[in-house]
Amino acid sequence: MTYRLRFVAGLAALVALMSTASPTIADEGMWLFNAPPLKQLKEKYGFEPDQKWLDHVQKSSVRFNSGGSGSFVSADGLVMTNHHVGADDLQKLSTNEKNYLRDGFHARTKAEEIKCKALELNVLQSMKDVTAEVNASVTPEMPPAEAFKARQAKIEEIQKATADPAKGVRADVVTLFAGGAYHLYTFKKYTDIRLVFAPEKAIAFFGGDPDNFEYPRYDLDICFFRVYENDQPVKPEHFLSWSPAGTKADELIFVSGHPGRTNRQQTMAELEYLRDTGYPYLLQRLNRLEVLLGSWVARSEANKQKGEDELFGIQNSRKARIGGLQGLLDPQIMARKKADEERLKNFIALSGAKGSSAPPWAADAAKAFDTIAKAEKTRATLIKDVTLLENGAAFNSSYFGIARTLVRAADEKPKAPAERLREFADSRLPSLEFALFSEEPHYDDFEILKFADSLTMLASHYGSNDPMVQKILAGKSPRERAFELVSGTKVKDPAVRKKLYEGGKAAVDAANDPMIELVKLVDAKSREVRKTFENEVDEPKRQAYTALAKARFAMDGANTYPDATFTLRLSYGTVKGFQEDGKDVPPYTDFAGLYTRSKEQGNKDPFELPKRWEVKKESIDLKTPFNFVSTADIIGGNSGSPVINKAGEVVGIIFDGNIQSLVLDFIYDQTQARAVSVDSRAIMEALRKVYDAGDLADEITGKKK
Amino acid sequence: MTYRLRFVAGLAALVALMSTASPTIADEGMWLFNAPPLKQLKEKYGFEPDQKWLDHVQKSSVRFNSGGSGSFVSADGLVMTNHHVGADDLQKLSTNEKNYLRDGFHARTKAEEIKCKALELNVLQSMKDVTAEVNASVTPEMPPAEAFKARQAKIEEIQKATADPAKGVRADVVTLFAGGAYHLYTFKKYTDIRLVFAPEKAIAFFGGDPDNFEYPRYDLDICFFRVYENDQPVKPEHFLSWSPAGTKADELIFVSGHPGRTNRQQTMAELEYLRDTGYPYLLQRLNRLEVLLGSWVARSEANKQKGEDELFGIQNSRKARIGGLQGLLDPQIMARKKADEERLKNFIALSGAKGSSAPPWAADAAKAFDTIAKAEKTRATLIKDVTLLENGAAFNSSYFGIARTLVRAADEKPKAPAERLREFADSRLPSLEFALFSEEPHYDDFEILKFADSLTMLASHYGSNDPMVQKILAGKSPRERAFELVSGTKVKDPAVRKKLYEGGKAAVDAANDPMIELVKLVDAKSREVRKTFENEVDEPKRQAYTALAKARFAMDGANTYPDATFTLRLSYGTVKGFQEDGKDVPPYTDFAGLYTRSKEQGNKDPFELPKRWEVKKESIDLKTPFNFVSTADIIGGNSGSPVINKAGEVVGIIFDGNIQSLVLDFIYDQTQARAVSVDSRAIMEALRKVYDAGDLADEITGKKK
Repeated sequence: MTYRLRFVAGLAALVALMSTASPTIADEGMWLFNAPPLKQLKEKYGFEPDQKWLDHVQKSSVRFNSGGSGSFVSADGLVMTNHHVGADDLQKLSTNEKNYLRDGFHARTKAEEIKCKALELNVLQSMKDVTAEVNASVTPEMPPAEAFKARQAKIEEIQKATADPAKGVRADVVTLFAGGAYHLYTFKKYTDIRLVFAPEKAIAFFGGDPDNFEYPRYDLDICFFRVYENDQPVKPEHFLSWSPAGTKADELIFVSGHPGRTNRQQTMAELEYLRDTGYPYLLQRLNRLEVLLGSWVARSEANKQKGEDELFGIQNSRKARIGGLQGLLDPQIMARKKADEERLKNFIALSGAKGSSAPPWAADAAKAFDTIAKAEKTRATLIKDVTLLENGAAFNSSYFGIARTLVRAADEKPKAPAERLREFADSRLPSLEFALFSEEPHYDDFEILKFADSLTMLASHYGSNDPMVQKILAGKSPRERAFELVSGTKVKDPAVRKKLYEGGKAAVDAANDPMIELVKLVDAKSREVRKTFENEVDEPKRQAYTALAKARFAMDGANTYPDATFTLRLSYGTVKGFQEDGKDVPPYTDFAGLYTRSKEQGNKDPFELPKRWEVKKESIDLKTPFNFVSTADIIGGNSGSPVINKAGEVVGIIFDGNIQSLVLDFIYDQTQARAVSVDSRAIMEALRKVYDAGDLADEITGKKK
Repeated sequence: MTYRLRFVAGLAALVALMSTASPTIADEGMWLFNAPPLKQLKEKYGFEPDQKWLDHVQKSSVRFNSGGSGSFVSADGLVMTNHHVGADDLQKLSTNEKNYLRDGFHARTKAEEIKCKALELNVLQSMKDVTAEVNASVTPEMPPAEAFKARQAKIEEIQKATADPAKGVRADVVTLFAGGAYHLYTFKKYTDIRLVFAPEKAIAFFGGDPDNFEYPRYDLDICFFRVYENDQPVKPEHFLSWSPAGTKADELIFVSGHPGRTNRQQTMAELEYLRDTGYPYLLQRLNRLEVLLGSWVARSEANKQKGEDELFGIQNSRKARIGGLQGLLDPQIMARKKADEERLKNFIALSGAKGSSAPPWAADAAKAFDTIAKAEKTRATLIKDVTLLENGAAFNSSYFGIARTLVRAADEKPKAPAERLREFADSRLPSLEFALFSEEPHYDDFEILKFADSLTMLASHYGSNDPMVQKILAGKSPRERAFELVSGTKVKDPAVRKKLYEGGKAAVDAANDPMIELVKLVDAKSREVRKTFENEVDEPKRQAYTALAKARFAMDGANTYPDATFTLRLSYGTVKGFQEDGKDVPPYTDFAGLYTRSKEQGNKDPFELPKRWEVKKESIDLKTPFNFVSTADIIGGNSGSPVINKAGEVVGIIFDGNIQSLVLDFIYDQTQARAVSVDSRAIMEALRKVYDAGDLADEITGKKK
């Protein structure tokens, strides 16, 4: 349903030492490749990347549609990402006999590589500004719902004109600057992705949830896939070469990846909504799921294999949100944000006071703060309905999601494109179908566990005597009802799904499937809630933020970057430690530190080293740099992003941020916030000395015959 | 703050096979020792315990005021209870060097026994019905608040007349039948309690949270203390002898212990409150705490030692409440409860219709259902305020609790006894002072963690812009504020506490302590919320339930038992397996099963066996019965209760119920609900063969010279 991004919205707690440096001096920004920070790089670092450099980096960068980043690192289509980005696939490929997520995997020949079940990679080929075209579809007189539809229709039209599914060309109109700009992104799309190499989870995620978002750190969070087309490895036009030397402290580095979402333009009204309502409610659900899954996973090894990846995503989100909430509750952070808002308000007021020479956005921008404040109030009243029904939190089973896709596809596909729910836009259907028909395994016992709990949450929220709840539960307890629905539904069979999808409404209506019947029971209410939310929250806010984005653009000039939107961005910074509680935290860790931390924690899960690492200890150079931190501006979605040097070579791979970096969701800080990477030298040392993966190392370093 | 009872309120999910047997035939009931189920025992089992038998069992039974049960098992004052009942004390006695909770403890001589820091044991000496006396203090004309005070004053007076602190005589007027009866309980109170023996936590709580409330089970959940007076071991008048033979399947057994609370008289309105509001809200907080403590404990061994016992209590409550909520959400259970309520309503209506010959309770009972329904509505509106402020959930630090006790003691002690908050009644002051001045360790880092999180919860609930929240946070983030208060308060020093307590209001006002200042800031509001809750929820309900209890008593006759109230009760039943998913679960497990389960789970925490158990495996008789289940009617607080045979000998010790037993909170069931015990034979085998504790075994079996 949602991307599992390692670095989700958040704010750090400790801002006493917060930088007050101006944005042009700080290493701030997640820059568009078609508007890179050339001035800043030149002024601060004396470095001027040319278009060739930018093109090369852009086209070597890979987006994992499951919610992460990666890069081509060989001429034979090898893609590097994080173990935790590949974790979903590692789990899906595992069997009762082979647990690749836990034990790792190494295909020693291409024949041994295993095809992933539902993984899509995208490589950005080109970007084009279509703002004028999109905006021309909307007139100021249109009511919000109509404006929304008109814009969606135009976007759909633009996408359709460019996309070429037969050739693997995907086209997305992406929204930037909170609706201030629309760019048409054209991607090369790959769906035949095969697993090549993964280390054991115990070393990839060494320290587990306890060490997550902490530093110093000792994780080999890497994973390699190979991209195929027509059953042959792809020969990518661009791939990154490998730096044998790695980095030195204070060296300039770049990060090319797909930050998922930042919220740096949000008004105080929205931040206060998040602080008092949004985050607390989300954390409540995350806590609930973490306890549910955590205790179930602990019951047996079989449960662990089925559920641990989902659990780890939940823990990750929970920690990130706690960090974010801490920041929102910090009066100093909020004071900085408020000062920034005042500056913008003053600018808008001054612009508006210019009478007939006021800029065209001035009137809208002047109303925008109140519009957003009103929308946030509405949001607070709707959020639980939206979450439970439309977002499906009350029906937490993959089978429910599948059944709803089938029911809605039958309703939506016959409609004119502009009338459809946006996930049924023609341009999105191929990806939707790919996911819908995928053979990825689901486990009835795990589905029952989650579904029963979510039905319980539904009953608690609306009260058991609520007529809708009574209809949903059908005279049974949540557990009995979940058992009945999960056991009884036939949508668990991909062949049935395909038949129903292709059969359309007639087939779905005749399916006589209990899960489909449940979907139908709640769908009218669910759609209604969604519609209200879109009309009264999303669309007014979109328009208000568009006006504010224009005002801010006018105020701060073109030399700025949009909030993250899971589109490709370029960040930069230097390798640099930080201070914590008055103590220096050095930028690098090494393998020696790994062994020490493991020993201190009794070599127990999640600090237990894989056997291989004990056996090979003697042959490893313990001084090899393992992880390092830098000041690059990153966020969730950057997981797996290559860290590259001025020469465009891989010197590391992003896999986390420290706890202080959670502030980056709302505000950049380079005093303490740090991106955490695996060092390229550690990767080579581990492949060659620990994993006997000389062939792979040779391929990456271009030494392969 | 609250008792940590292993078996908390709950209901099982699976009642398809629910017994419909009448209460006189089922092994139902937590019977008062002064109204034992003689008729039932005679009819069903042909057994007639005499008064001597009852006195012996009563006076051999021990209440752990920390929230559990136990029994004298030797002539030298040895007391047996569960490891998890002793866990708080094991943790408090541990040091950086010695972790008794984890590693166990064995005093080979009396000199090696360690005195607990704040443990009080009570042994029930006598019971006297004082209902008439208490009720005479209240007139029908009194408004609720006045009635409450008058009753409290009378209770206080009765207690004071009997208590003799100098001689260790404690007197409590206990409320039974929901206010239908008041009995004066006289206890012998012991406060010099020394630790004698505990196994490793890994075997006491083998299977941890995953196997908690499950069966089959393999736990050596035992712990031994010795009671001292005047620095000498107590020679108890009564102690239980040990059965070498244990039990056989279908054998009649008894459980003598202190069930904490059952809710079998609750009306549908109250059950619906619990289902839709009370349980969901409590589970929300338990989930939050479990995640908070779980992730902190995982960070290091030091954290684990500080927090794991509290974590384990939270997990235990969570699992119990989830079971309870499942039951409340089960339409079949609710239908049975509703039928029972209809029966009572009809009886009341018929009684009331008798005109002038209607019983005196008829008019009150007729209104009671509506009164309770109204009170439950009010409860739902107040519960969060009460929980956060008066119950202190928003100020989750031991230091806050201590500071509040100091502030309130200074306010309350000068008042007339009847005017005081009930916890400052004269009879309660000795226990309150004992706890207040105890040297039990607190850890600033752990306190900060919990306090910061609870302040965050406070801010989320009321909103950060709320004036009270702003005053409480004083311009800081929750984390900074928690750090400041926990670091700055001097109440962490028992000597300071003593001085402030003895100095009264003047001393407390002059203390200039940040935590005390915080308490003062919120105390007026907190007291107001409490008062409203007592007047509008507690007192009307107490009166209404009193009327219903009288009606029920009239309906069902004297042959009944009151809801559990953490007073001594006698339960009975037989050793018996059960069916689950159509499969037989046999009543006994054995040591062989322990080794198998550990192996299946990779011998990993919480299934990791202590080394000793690996080493001694060869010398143990693997066929020794380890745990067993019985149909006895138990609930949280029964933890540590001796299981005895007709001869009054120990055949086991209660330590858990299966998941189906969570239904016992609201309704008895003997189809699937089972009490889980450690077998007396396993205890002996383990003491002699695994722990080299022959002396202790000899003392228990009376073989000691």
